[in-house]
Amino acid sequence: MKRIYMDHAATTPLAPEVLDAMIPYFSERFGNPSSLHSFGRVAREAVDDARSDVAALLNAEPSEIYFTSGGTESDNLAIKGIARKSKKKGRHIITSSIEHPAVLEVCKALTREGFEVTYLPVTREGLVEVGTVEEAVQEDTILISVMHANNEIGTIQPLEEIGRLAGEKEIYFHTDGVQTAGKIPVDVKSLGLDAFTLSGHKLYGPKGAGALYIRKGVRIESIQQGGGHERGMRSGTENVPGIVGLGRAAKIAKENMAEESERMRSLRDRMSGWVLKEIEDSWLNGHPDKRLPSNLNFGFRYIEGESLLLYLDAKGVAASTGSACSSKKLAASHVLSAIGLSPVESHGSLRITLGMSNTEEDADYACRAISDSVKRLREMSAMRPE
Amino acid sequence: MKRIYMDHAATTPLAPEVLDAMIPYFSERFGNPSSLHSFGRVAREAVDDARSDVAALLNAEPSEIYFTSGGTESDNLAIKGIARKSKKKGRHIITSSIEHPAVLEVCKALTREGFEVTYLPVTREGLVEVGTVEEAVQEDTILISVMHANNEIGTIQPLEEIGRLAGEKEIYFHTDGVQTAGKIPVDVKSLGLDAFTLSGHKLYGPKGAGALYIRKGVRIESIQQGGGHERGMRSGTENVPGIVGLGRAAKIAKENMAEESERMRSLRDRMSGWVLKEIEDSWLNGHPDKRLPSNLNFGFRYIEGESLLLYLDAKGVAASTGSACSSKKLAASHVLSAIGLSPVESHGSLRITLGMSNTEEDADYACRAISDSVKRLREMSAMRPE
Ligand SMILES: Cc1ncc(COP(=O)(O)O)c(C=O)c1O
Ligand SMILES: Cc1ncc(COP(=O)(O)O)c(C=O)c1O
Repeated sequence: MKRIYMDHAATTPLAPEVLDAMIPYFSERFGNPSSLHSFGRVAREAVDDARSDVAALLNAEPSEIYFTSGGTESDNLAIKGIARKSKKKGRHIITSSIEHPAVLEVCKALTREGFEVTYLPVTREGLVEVGTVEEAVQEDTILISVMHANNEIGTIQPLEEIGRLAGEKEIYFHTDGVQTAGKIPVDVKSLGLDAFTLSGHKLYGPKGAGALYIRKGVRIESIQQGGGHERGMRSGTENVPGIVGLGRAAKIAKENMAEESERMRSLRDRMSGWVLKEIEDSWLNGHPDKRLPSNLNFGFRYIEGESLLLYLDAKGVAASTGSACSSKKLAASHVLSAIGLSPVESHGSLRITLGMSNTEEDADYACRAISDSVKRLREMSAMRPE
Repeated sequence: MKRIYMDHAATTPLAPEVLDAMIPYFSERFGNPSSLHSFGRVAREAVDDARSDVAALLNAEPSEIYFTSGGTESDNLAIKGIARKSKKKGRHIITSSIEHPAVLEVCKALTREGFEVTYLPVTREGLVEVGTVEEAVQEDTILISVMHANNEIGTIQPLEEIGRLAGEKEIYFHTDGVQTAGKIPVDVKSLGLDAFTLSGHKLYGPKGAGALYIRKGVRIESIQQGGGHERGMRSGTENVPGIVGLGRAAKIAKENMAEESERMRSLRDRMSGWVLKEIEDSWLNGHPDKRLPSNLNFGFRYIEGESLLLYLDAKGVAASTGSACSSKKLAASHVLSAIGLSPVESHGSLRITLGMSNTEEDADYACRAISDSVKRLREMSAMRPE
C-alpha cells in the first residue's frame, strides 16, 4: 500500500544527508568531547561546528546556543532556569493558553514553587493580542513565554510586537519555536528574544537532540547538574551524533527554507481549497494567513476525529487529531477549546502537517481519502439511532 | 599510526549490531510513539521491546524502566525526584565522597533547597564501609545514594550490604551504575535497590540515551514536565533510535558479559603486572580485587598525568587522567584525594579502561608506550633546575 506521511508536526524522518553526517560519530569518531586525546578533540570540533550551524539558523552567536535532549528539555530549562534565577526580582510569569504541555506543565510545576502564572486568551484564529500581554504585565513579572507557531493550528504569533513590549518593560522573553525553526525565518535579534527553544526531530534532524538559544547576559540557572558540560548550563555527556545531526539539519533547513516553504504553502492551499469546497460542514481552524505553510487543521461536523484518523491510516494516510502527545488522551484539545470550539466541534478535527516528501499527487490522494472517510463515517452515524 | 583506544570509561564506540538496529528508526520507521497511526505504532513497539531488554539486564520489570537522555539525567531524576517527593518525611541524604559529579552536584543543588547531605569517607582502596553508612543514618534520612563502581579507580562497592541496611531502615537506596551496567552482573532485587542509573554510551550503546530503574512503589516526582511521556515520569518525545540502540546494547552486554569480563580481567592483570614491575615508583590506585575487570588506575611518582596523556596520545594510545568531564579542570581528582593521595601523587595518575576492541597486542603496546613516556618525562623533569 502507498503510505503518505502527513504528520510532520509530530515528527519528521531524518534527512538522508543528516544521517550520513551522523554515522561517523557513532563509529570511528565516537570520542567523548571532554577527553583530551585525539578521539576527544575530533568530537569537540564536531560539536562546535554544529553549534555554529544552529546559531546561523537563528542569527545568534554560537556561544548563545546550548544543546539539550529536545524541545521539552529546552522549554523546561528556559522557563525554570530564568524563573528560579529571577525569583528575588519577582514571581509572575505570563504565557498563553495554547502553549504546548512542555510550557504549560512547567508553568504549573512552578506554581508549586510559589510562582504565579497568567494564561493569556487567544482570538478565534488563535492569536495572542499584544494588548492582552500589556494588560497582564505586573510589577513583578519576570518572564513572558509565548510560542512562535502553534503545533495544532499553526497560527504564528506577533512575536516582534511582544518582544518590543518585553524589552521596554525589561521582562525576559522566551518563545517555543519547535514548530517554526527551520520552517520560517527566525531572527532572535529582530524578534527581541532572550530565549528560543528548538527541537531536532521536527526539522528532519534526530530525536533526542534540541537546543536552547539564551541571549548573552540573560541570568539563568541550570536544571541538570553534573560534570559542567555546555558551559555549566547543561551537564551530561554530549550526544555527539545527535548534535551533529541537529547542526546538519539546521544548515539544510536554512538553505532550502525559501523554496520549500513556498512549496508547502502551495500544497497546503491546494488541499484546503479542495477540502473546504468538496466536503460539506467543514472549516479550517487557525488563522487564514498568519499560519505555518505546512499546517492544516480541519473541522468536520458530525465526525469523531479519532475514527477519521484510523480510516485514513487504513488508506495509508498518516495524520493526527491534534498534538501527538495528547492524541492518546480523550480530553478535548486545550488549543481548540481556547479558540472557542465546543467539545463536539473540537472532537471532529483533523491535523495535516506537510513535509519534504509530500507531492501534489499525495495531496490529491489525501484529499480524496479524507472526503471518502468523512462520507463513510457520516453515513454510519446517520444510521445510528439517536 | 596505530590507534589504541583505552578510555572506555569515558565513552565507548557503538557496537556495529547496535548501529544496525538503530538505522531503520532514523529513516523508514521514524514515527513518534505517541502517534495513533501505523508509523507511531511501529515506534511504540520498538520502545517497548527495548524496555524489556534493559529490564532483563537488571532483573527488573519492564514497567520499572524509564528512558532518559543519559546517566546524568538519570542521576538527577533519581536523587531530586525521590528527595523532593519525600521532603515531608525528611531532608537528609547520604552519599559518598567519591561519587560522579552527576550525583555530587545534584546533592549540592539540593542543599540550596533545604536538604542536608552527609558525604561518606572511603578507605584507602576506595571502599565505602557499611559501618559508616549505619553511623550516618539519622531519623530524617530519606535517601542513600552510593555508586556501584567508581569511574576513576574502578572500586566496586558492597551494595548488597548497604541495600540490606537501607531496607531495614526503610530508606530509599539509589546507585549510579553507569560504570557497571553491562560489565558486571546487576540484580536490582538482590542488591536491594530502589533506583539504578545506567547510560547507553558506556556499554557500546548511543550517547544521549540512558535509563533509570525505579522499583515499583517508590515515591518519586518527575523533574522534566511536558506531554507526560514515560508514564508521566519523563516528558519529551522519546529518542526512539537511541532507545532502540540502548536496548540492543543491553541485550548484547547480557549475552557477552561472562566471557568478555573474563577477557578484560586477564588483559587488565597482564598490564598491571607488567607496569608495576617494569616502572619504578608506580602503584595501583583502587582496590586490588573489588575492582571493575576493565579498570586500571596507575600512579607514577614525579609525573604530571596530563603530560603523560599527551605523550601517549602522540603514540596512538588514548587514555585519561581521571574522569572525562573533569579532565579539563586542573583541580586534583576528588576521588584520589578521598582515598588519601596528596595533590602531587594524584596529579601523576593515569586511567586505562579496557574494552571490546582491545587485544593482548594492544595491551603490550600500551605498556611499552607508558613505560617509554614515563621514562622520557622523568628524564626531562630531572633536567629541570629545582
Ligand atoms: C510547540 C512544541 N513545543 C515543544 C515540543 C516538545 O519537543 P520535543 O518533542 O523535542 O520534546 C513540541 C513537540 O512535541 C511542540 O510541538
Ligand atoms: C559513574 C558515572 N556516573 C554518571 C556519569 C554521567 O553519565 P552520562 O555521561 O551518560 O551523562 C558518568 C559518565 O560520565 C559516570 O562515569
